[in-house]
Amino acid sequence: MQEYSLYVHKIPVGVLGASGYAGRELCALILGHPRLSLAFASANAQRGEHFHAAGSSITFAAPEDVALASAELVFSALPHGASADWVARTREAGARAVDLSADLRIGNGASDVPYGLTEVARAEVTGAQVIANPGCYPTATLIAILPLLEAGLVVAGSTISISAASGVTGAGMAPRTDLLFGEVTENFKAYGVANEHRHLREMRAMVARTGADVDLLFTPHLLPVARGILATILVPLSAPLADPLAPLRARWKGERFIEVSAEPPALRDVVHRNVVRLSARMAAHVRTPTLQVFAAIDNLVKGAAGQALQNANLALGLAEDAGLPA
Amino acid sequence: MQEYSLYVHKIPVGVLGASGYAGRELCALILGHPRLSLAFASANAQRGEHFHAAGSSITFAAPEDVALASAELVFSALPHGASADWVARTREAGARAVDLSADLRIGNGASDVPYGLTEVARAEVTGAQVIANPGCYPTATLIAILPLLEAGLVVAGSTISISAASGVTGAGMAPRTDLLFGEVTENFKAYGVANEHRHLREMRAMVARTGADVDLLFTPHLLPVARGILATILVPLSAPLADPLAPLRARWKGERFIEVSAEPPALRDVVHRNVVRLSARMAAHVRTPTLQVFAAIDNLVKGAAGQALQNANLALGLAEDAGLPA
Amino acid sequence: MQEYSLYVHKIPVGVLGASGYAGRELCALILGHPRLSLAFASANAQRGEHFHAAGSSITFAAPEDVALASAELVFSALPHGASADWVARTREAGARAVDLSADLRIGNGASDVPYGLTEVARAEVTGAQVIANPGCYPTATLIAILPLLEAGLVVAGSTISISAASGVTGAGMAPRTDLLFGEVTENFKAYGVANEHRHLREMRAMVARTGADVDLLFTPHLLPVARGILATILVPLSAPLADPLAPLRARWKGERFIEVSAEPPALRDVVHRNVVRLSARMAAHVRTPTLQVFAAIDNLVKGAAGQALQNANLALGLAEDAGLPA
Amino acid sequence: MQEYSLYVHKIPVGVLGASGYAGRELCALILGHPRLSLAFASANAQRGEHFHAAGSSITFAAPEDVALASAELVFSALPHGASADWVARTREAGARAVDLSADLRIGNGASDVPYGLTEVARAEVTGAQVIANPGCYPTATLIAILPLLEAGLVVAGSTISISAASGVTGAGMAPRTDLLFGEVTENFKAYGVANEHRHLREMRAMVARTGADVDLLFTPHLLPVARGILATILVPLSAPLADPLAPLRARWKGERFIEVSAEPPALRDVVHRNVVRLSARMAAHVRTPTLQVFAAIDNLVKGAAGQALQNANLALGLAEDAGLPA
Repeated sequence: MQEYSLYVHKIPVGVLGASGYAGRELCALILGHPRLSLAFASANAQRGEHFHAAGSSITFAAPEDVALASAELVFSALPHGASADWVARTREAGARAVDLSADLRIGNGASDVPYGLTEVARAEVTGAQVIANPGCYPTATLIAILPLLEAGLVVAGSTISISAASGVTGAGMAPRTDLLFGEVTENFKAYGVANEHRHLREMRAMVARTGADVDLLFTPHLLPVARGILATILVPLSAPLADPLAPLRARWKGERFIEVSAEPPALRDVVHRNVVRLSARMAAHVRTPTLQVFAAIDNLVKGAAGQALQNANLALGLAEDAGLPA
Repeated sequence: MQEYSLYVHKIPVGVLGASGYAGRELCALILGHPRLSLAFASANAQRGEHFHAAGSSITFAAPEDVALASAELVFSALPHGASADWVARTREAGARAVDLSADLRIGNGASDVPYGLTEVARAEVTGAQVIANPGCYPTATLIAILPLLEAGLVVAGSTISISAASGVTGAGMAPRTDLLFGEVTENFKAYGVANEHRHLREMRAMVARTGADVDLLFTPHLLPVARGILATILVPLSAPLADPLAPLRARWKGERFIEVSAEPPALRDVVHRNVVRLSARMAAHVRTPTLQVFAAIDNLVKGAAGQALQNANLALGLAEDAGLPA
Repeated sequence: MQEYSLYVHKIPVGVLGASGYAGRELCALILGHPRLSLAFASANAQRGEHFHAAGSSITFAAPEDVALASAELVFSALPHGASADWVARTREAGARAVDLSADLRIGNGASDVPYGLTEVARAEVTGAQVIANPGCYPTATLIAILPLLEAGLVVAGSTISISAASGVTGAGMAPRTDLLFGEVTENFKAYGVANEHRHLREMRAMVARTGADVDLLFTPHLLPVARGILATILVPLSAPLADPLAPLRARWKGERFIEVSAEPPALRDVVHRNVVRLSARMAAHVRTPTLQVFAAIDNLVKGAAGQALQNANLALGLAEDAGLPA
Repeated sequence: MQEYSLYVHKIPVGVLGASGYAGRELCALILGHPRLSLAFASANAQRGEHFHAAGSSITFAAPEDVALASAELVFSALPHGASADWVARTREAGARAVDLSADLRIGNGASDVPYGLTEVARAEVTGAQVIANPGCYPTATLIAILPLLEAGLVVAGSTISISAASGVTGAGMAPRTDLLFGEVTENFKAYGVANEHRHLREMRAMVARTGADVDLLFTPHLLPVARGILATILVPLSAPLADPLAPLRARWKGERFIEVSAEPPALRDVVHRNVVRLSARMAAHVRTPTLQVFAAIDNLVKGAAGQALQNANLALGLAEDAGLPA
């Protein structure tokens, strides 16, 4: 009963925009990854600062000091708008790219870049040179509703409504008065139209691909928690489902990072894990059959850094779940 | 510029079940009320304990030591099921009663007891002997949707969906593992069917009164905050509204405790205040006209103790807003 | 039993730096004050924005548009360093000034300006033209230890240690990454030396006035709450006290805004109230007699805006407790 | 670059009292441990309930259904008072025991059982049959002060004061009104004398072993966070230290689970990790040399389940850090 220490070649990867919440989560996951090493982590304003994760310390490099070619794959966690240009430079340097911004996502940018909702796009993502990593709200929502749309269960012409609530890290780490602890604690509210539109575009483009004719009504709320998204979704069905979980279970059978449970999910069930947790029940007391679907994710893991790594694993030919907390 | 001290006769009122969150809020409001005095505050398990509020200290009496007849009006904040009997005893003792439990509410109990959604039932409540105080979710929801239903704006046969989130004091003060700080902090989830039914009954009965033919789909969630409810409501409309706030403003014109604003309300706008704050907007990107209505209240004030006092003021012939924080 | 409406002349007062936490609290208190009216509320970056409080709406004026002479008294909630100059202008305009910054406080600035720890400086403050309002930590600490020092109970040459924890509003409303909800929630740490020095100077200067020869060791911590300070203080005594509360009770007898209780105070006991709540007990298991004193305040009320109003009331010849929540 | 799957024999261990916070943390650590398997997890009131952790699901067994002999080592996370008896039964069944309760700790129980402050008691713990796992406050405190006491740096006859704050999981999972979210959020207070004594006994007994003649003054506070303890400790020194970190660094050199840093630690630095993080600085502005030491731990990991596993690893002859998050 001996323990073997194997020499394993580690693949160098880099992170651009590493100082925000998603960037730090990425760095931590990479540092704990059995097959990846961190070639660089850049941050503009935080250049020179140290960051501790997974028992290691890294120093944020200035973006201009980064050798893109030193990495086989580069994650960009740069802000929307600033990211696409760096992805292009990354490609020129010969490295693969996973873009966590909205710049290249379906409905927002170049239509030929795979949209890395991994469980849906596994074939396109495997070995890909560039991947657009989905937004956090779309990840939770699409994993919940695509099975119903693909199975033709949804009333044509109807509206699917998504009431979703996110922890504050979904808004990033930039200092904003409305995100101060003193403003967020003991508070709750609906917010924003800017984000709503960006996320809606992704969701609507992916829904359109199924050929289903439905509208999406999306209302995001800001929760006084650090992490997590819960989406409560109402789907008008053509007929009641005897087993409301069946379509979800059938579609996601064998998926390690999608869980379907009878109990509605709580944020606690998913934080720090690379999973979408789903539940569903037929709404009671209403005459038109309506499925109530719940989807919970950690916005920084399956909603950002975790799924980015899941995609990177496939792009690099590694095991899909390598280095991912399930 | 002198300050006058006027001798004002204070009306003695009592509180049954005073040790819970709603009961304590009631005691505090009564102690700060210009025209009421606290004749007694009973609590079974907490008998003998002291409670400080509004600069005074009160001692919880044992229920069996309380002289109901010493009060002109008695508030019952006893648990559902246990309250109706005490309301009957109160009536026998010759005092008026405001029942904060569900026991006598429309859809749940005696149909002849006024349902004290004050702004809707002002005439019935004024001078009443017994009043059933509405639940917290129904208060927020009904103030938001009744104007639309009464004005005939809602599609017949449609479903109004209510996605609501409440702070933990809405679940009361009984020690429950699932309400421990360690379980609630950094968490969020949909919950319960028991409460859902009780609150749905009130809402559906009040909706039925308007003659409108609509279903209600209600999904409550538990928020990691102490106080406050936010309801995000989707209402299918027969036609788009040019001014989405107009029906709300028209119906609640002149109401001191109902606020209509262009900005979606936050819990911060309403906590510790006896108000419902509303906003509304036409949902974008959907082909069937849908009004998105937001309603926020403090579940312990306008959702419980505050509205109970508002009703008591009217029952006793006092100014409706006496002693109420707006 | 009629209610009389009396015409009362209201004294116009202004607020500089009104958009921060202390400034907003001041505006809210003034709007609810029976004898004061709000002549102006200035804010530089937030000029033109609206602020709702106490049922009223106010608009933040640009500092240069403010007519200082339109007020009989001006509160400055401007940042340390920027405040003294505006106080001087206020004086030139003929108005009284209460400065909430550290600029004029004992140990920091002009030694001839009364240091408005109201219960200690009531005589100096009454009718004063300028008052330096104490810091939040010093208010809690000094009310706790001055009685012991004045009574000669403390060991000469000893060190009084103050381990204090404050809610985040004590750090103001400026957008800082380290004060984001995502950074503060579920966290706790000791912090800062800059504030420590400023607050220590006030405390040491006031301690020196008693003639006592003691050192102060002050360690502030940042709490994941919006409001409130709790100071846990260890005082080496010359001899054990049979009744540890006696010196506190004797010194603060009759003070409406100082409470002495057997039970250690919690933040909950003091938030939104203009009080210092104290408790004390002899430390067990130690051979050198040590008094453990607890002091709790709301940093924005008794620790800032509330005490400023208490001082303003005295400066203007009004009842000391006018408009103050006890 | 292949991945090898090695067959590793797993050692069966059991958990008594598995449904509380420490018990669940233990189960999760065991399920993720490379060399241990979970033979059973008992819980009295929760018998039959399922618990998910580390990708597995376990069912809480009734205590009477547990075969103690099926495990090579049994962790007892039973309440103080109830634990010692089960430890005895475990020994009779031939299994080793790690007791997380206070029953067998130094100063509380049998003096011949090793007190598993691992870094101090490594030799005694290695291969031990029974280990008393330290309390959470004592772990943080002793790792901070033992180096100073052992080095003879502390003034004889003086008092070391420990002002410590703990998250609510330190109080366990039993439903208590004072631990409800509604009571703890936005609150902070000193508490308890019962716990204080139990923890003080351990600390004093361990201090006595060093031969140092000092008193301990311990004040615990309840923090509105789920996890984590921060202790702020004042130590009277015989002479100032030029390098305040030197004694800590010297004593804990090479220890994987003890970190010494220049920056005062925050709870964020240690949660979900099996570490004590220390910092120290000479107190300023005081004439008697005083070292201010900060110690932070996760009360459920290094303060309970993590250290228990660290001890179990040594008892079983495994690598000390096996299965532990550093």
